[in-house]
Amino acid sequence: MQDDSMVPGLHPLLAARWSPTTFDPTFDLDTAHAELLVEAARWAPSAGNSQPWAFVMGRRGDDTHQRLVRHLAASSRRWAPSASVLVANLAHRFVDGTDWEYSEFAHYDLGQAVAHMTVQAQALGLFARQFRAFDRDALAAEFGVPTHWEVTTMSAFGRVPPTADTSARERRAVGELLWKGP
Amino acid sequence: MQDDSMVPGLHPLLAARWSPTTFDPTFDLDTAHAELLVEAARWAPSAGNSQPWAFVMGRRGDDTHQRLVRHLAASSRRWAPSASVLVANLAHRFVDGTDWEYSEFAHYDLGQAVAHMTVQAQALGLFARQFRAFDRDALAAEFGVPTHWEVTTMSAFGRVPPTADTSARERRAVGELLWKGP
Repeated sequence: MQDDSMVPGLHPLLAARWSPTTFDPTFDLDTAHAELLVEAARWAPSAGNSQPWAFVMGRRGDDTHQRLVRHLAASSRRWAPSASVLVANLAHRFVDGTDWEYSEFAHYDLGQAVAHMTVQAQALGLFARQFRAFDRDALAAEFGVPTHWEVTTMSAFGRVPPTADTSARERRAVGELLWKGP
Repeated sequence: MQDDSMVPGLHPLLAARWSPTTFDPTFDLDTAHAELLVEAARWAPSAGNSQPWAFVMGRRGDDTHQRLVRHLAASSRRWAPSASVLVANLAHRFVDGTDWEYSEFAHYDLGQAVAHMTVQAQALGLFARQFRAFDRDALAAEFGVPTHWEVTTMSAFGRVPPTADTSARERRAVGELLWKGP
């Protein structure tokens, strides 16, 4: 059963969140606000405080942004460059011989960190879209990411033009995701 | 370099979040607020809207709570039962022959969903602690969780007594998690 009704009382930062593919290409995010997104990720919880995350952040117009855009797939290249900020989200992964203890929760914790970035973005009047449509290997090579890190996802952050379509949110009903057991 | 300084401007719901192991054992969370936590998870983003999450939620005193407590490890049994709510967080995983498309981002997206629950909890004046100290197989058997789901983590939600120690938060410095590349 699909259900798009939202229960009253959900915090506005969560209730108003959605993932646009249309961003205002004229809006520049200043450095302080871009850094606040990283700060939000930084204070996310993680297993044993392992903090198994790292980020490559480019602001539209800067060198890092150009290097990120170079490795977008055709599908994301149509919309992602218009966002104010692009971020590559890196998860620490296990490789024999590295000195940092592996956490089986690296992906899980990176997801939490990116969720915190998204919540902070909403608080700044921004929206985020996460995506996988990029060349993972080429992007890792571009930024010299060692093998014990994985470029897991990318995020685009920016303002949304007032004409953007916000209608396309639906979810499984609560009864389907709340497990009752046998 | 470890650094526990927080940049001003971080949203209060993120800045004030921490993971207690002391909960007020007299505080009961009502059904409506417990359901809001699930609602927050429900509206989290996920790869292709795959929503690869499910939850087993017990409120202290109910039957589900007792069945969850039964499978806590000794370390979490010391503190987790005093929280108002215990949740087992399930990630969808790949098994040949199942009809639901596997997402490589199941753990990542579950992390996002649990982060959204935590943010909603903060908005309700609650705190959360996630943990792995439980018998994964026994808990799955208890609730008849099929093999294409994994009981990945648990969360405890509750109020924190005013005497709880909030001082133990530190993180890597921003310069360490913001990747500059070669």
